[in-house]
Amino acid sequence: MRVQVCIIGGGPSGLLLSHILHRAGIDTVILERRSRAHVLGRIRAGVLEQGTVETLRAHGLGDRMDAEGFPHSGTYVAARNRGFRVDFERLTGKRVMVYGQTEVTADLYAARDADSGRIVDEAEGVTIHDAGGRPHVTYRKDGAEHRIDCDWIAGCDGFHGVSRATIPADVLRTVERVYPFGWLGVLSRTKPAAHELIYANNSRGFALASMRNEGLSRYYIQAPVDDPLEKWTDAAFWDELRRRLPSDVAETMETGPSIEKSIAPLRSFVAEPMRWNRLFLVGDAAHIVPPTGAKGLNLAVADVRYLSEALIAHYAGDDSGVDGYSDRALARVWKATRFSWWFTTLMHRFPEDGTFGTRMKEAEIDYLEGSEAAQAAMAENYVGLPY
Amino acid sequence: MRVQVCIIGGGPSGLLLSHILHRAGIDTVILERRSRAHVLGRIRAGVLEQGTVETLRAHGLGDRMDAEGFPHSGTYVAARNRGFRVDFERLTGKRVMVYGQTEVTADLYAARDADSGRIVDEAEGVTIHDAGGRPHVTYRKDGAEHRIDCDWIAGCDGFHGVSRATIPADVLRTVERVYPFGWLGVLSRTKPAAHELIYANNSRGFALASMRNEGLSRYYIQAPVDDPLEKWTDAAFWDELRRRLPSDVAETMETGPSIEKSIAPLRSFVAEPMRWNRLFLVGDAAHIVPPTGAKGLNLAVADVRYLSEALIAHYAGDDSGVDGYSDRALARVWKATRFSWWFTTLMHRFPEDGTFGTRMKEAEIDYLEGSEAAQAAMAENYVGLPY
Repeated sequence: MRVQVCIIGGGPSGLLLSHILHRAGIDTVILERRSRAHVLGRIRAGVLEQGTVETLRAHGLGDRMDAEGFPHSGTYVAARNRGFRVDFERLTGKRVMVYGQTEVTADLYAARDADSGRIVDEAEGVTIHDAGGRPHVTYRKDGAEHRIDCDWIAGCDGFHGVSRATIPADVLRTVERVYPFGWLGVLSRTKPAAHELIYANNSRGFALASMRNEGLSRYYIQAPVDDPLEKWTDAAFWDELRRRLPSDVAETMETGPSIEKSIAPLRSFVAEPMRWNRLFLVGDAAHIVPPTGAKGLNLAVADVRYLSEALIAHYAGDDSGVDGYSDRALARVWKATRFSWWFTTLMHRFPEDGTFGTRMKEAEIDYLEGSEAAQAAMAENYVGLPY
Repeated sequence: MRVQVCIIGGGPSGLLLSHILHRAGIDTVILERRSRAHVLGRIRAGVLEQGTVETLRAHGLGDRMDAEGFPHSGTYVAARNRGFRVDFERLTGKRVMVYGQTEVTADLYAARDADSGRIVDEAEGVTIHDAGGRPHVTYRKDGAEHRIDCDWIAGCDGFHGVSRATIPADVLRTVERVYPFGWLGVLSRTKPAAHELIYANNSRGFALASMRNEGLSRYYIQAPVDDPLEKWTDAAFWDELRRRLPSDVAETMETGPSIEKSIAPLRSFVAEPMRWNRLFLVGDAAHIVPPTGAKGLNLAVADVRYLSEALIAHYAGDDSGVDGYSDRALARVWKATRFSWWFTTLMHRFPEDGTFGTRMKEAEIDYLEGSEAAQAAMAENYVGLPY
């Protein structure tokens, strides 16, 4: 089998890239290690930058998002039991869209199915060969060996995927920061605590009140990453969450049984370059951000946007896009990595903060509350820097 | 002897407070431990916020500053051999004034002398008594013991002074961060490297190209605080400075013999509260910032502004100002402490940065270069937040 672009990974990055390239007449196949049900069942972030929203709309993927998503024109930041609102729309003219990654992925599968896109799920032993010469990918499916020859390979297979691991160690430079805590997240069929998100810096640790829709809330609290989940009964979770949110919110918020509960580690990670010969890295395969500020999926969509433009130009005879892909993508990645690191650092308690570090965070949140310029800087990052 | 306000410390804070109170008909005396020649010979910061400039002008202290000072409407920030300008005036409508603290102090002494202000220099053994009851201050001068009874004591005697040390340990809370490096500073009779200041983040460490006037330059480089000064010959200093500034600046800058050379530690320090009974802390007696961003003298002038307003109101029968002084001053102090810490952290290399920390600083400087909002936030702090 031969295609122009072999895409490894059937999450949102791979699906969106396949969709955009297909509509531009470029032939792709997607190889996904897990089942479709598994991919569709993953619960991830839920805040889309305005540029992500526009990209999805521009490629015919916006209908359900616009019908069911919730545009947010601001967010709340709280500390020491006080909160204030950062008005994205007034400060930047842009909004964000609350619409779960799970929904985006479902929409992408539907679109790929409608276009008869080729997606091989449960592809085992996916291996990249000769990315510097005649690239091809092998895998096993239902006991049989398969080979796909291609012009390009797009590594959309996440942090633990084979794509990045294929690049020789003397080529790839990586930078990493693992944060000394995790996020304990709970999904519950309850009315969200507020109409917009609340990011809370509290002496007991960070808390985030988020949502999926009017009847589905998503809450997170900073917690030791190795805490056993059974320690966090629903009662214990709600109790701790209430202590960390501003009291007016805590007193009125609705609680109920959790329908999902998990602890996730927080990591900043960047791999450079994002192209090696005929292999591109896209999204989580090249970079991970902590979830504060919800940049992960948005960065992946930006990568897809850059890479699809580059490949479309390539097949029209212009290689400047593929040659510039890594630098272009990384310029955005570093800025989003900085923002995610800054917002994570500002809002969480770290063992190494000490009194001085804690006071600096409190002073920065006070300053943010009072400064249009500081709020504008936060807002322009949150809604997404220009492409 | 009896006065309304006994001021301990004859640096710029004490002199300015005495000057403003005198003009409002409030009787003061200043007790200074060192000789006037010593105070006038100290070389300190040289950038005045617009609010400081306006405060000095409003009290008749602006003539020589306006004739000899240099208004700067922006500054340069450099990293990785590239630089960009932050245009304070365009972003905030405000400028700063390059005019040395030494000159401000000389103007203040001249004004106090013109008004026959009482300044006791070389006052030994200054001691504060009964700040909670009938406050008085004792000292020795020329072998004789003296006592000053007063309504209020203003502690303008710096970080090492007696005023803060008088406040009981169970009342005073202090927060401190000592930075793991110092600033090696050189003054030379050379043409400044640029018309405005250049703050440079370099892999070898921070550098700052500053000036006093068209023929007097002030340069600093980040250096180990315990480096012996004799290691830093003029040639070694200029060589290291050139390596850290952008090459176009380094290649054209004028060098010459140093006329002053010293290494100073960098520290962030805040003491709370800034009032204890009838004793107020003012300026360095209550707070120290690292010199990056030149906030030290400006914070002291803000304290003096708040305290003089409070005392003038007190003698008019309104105690809200003296009761609110500590909170009002500290609100500004914490914001300036945060800015000075942020700018110091961003521009210097720390042993604990690691690759990730260094990349975050580079990403933040890149972001600052490209973002109006981020530059506006930096600029509004640099020119001075509103009182």
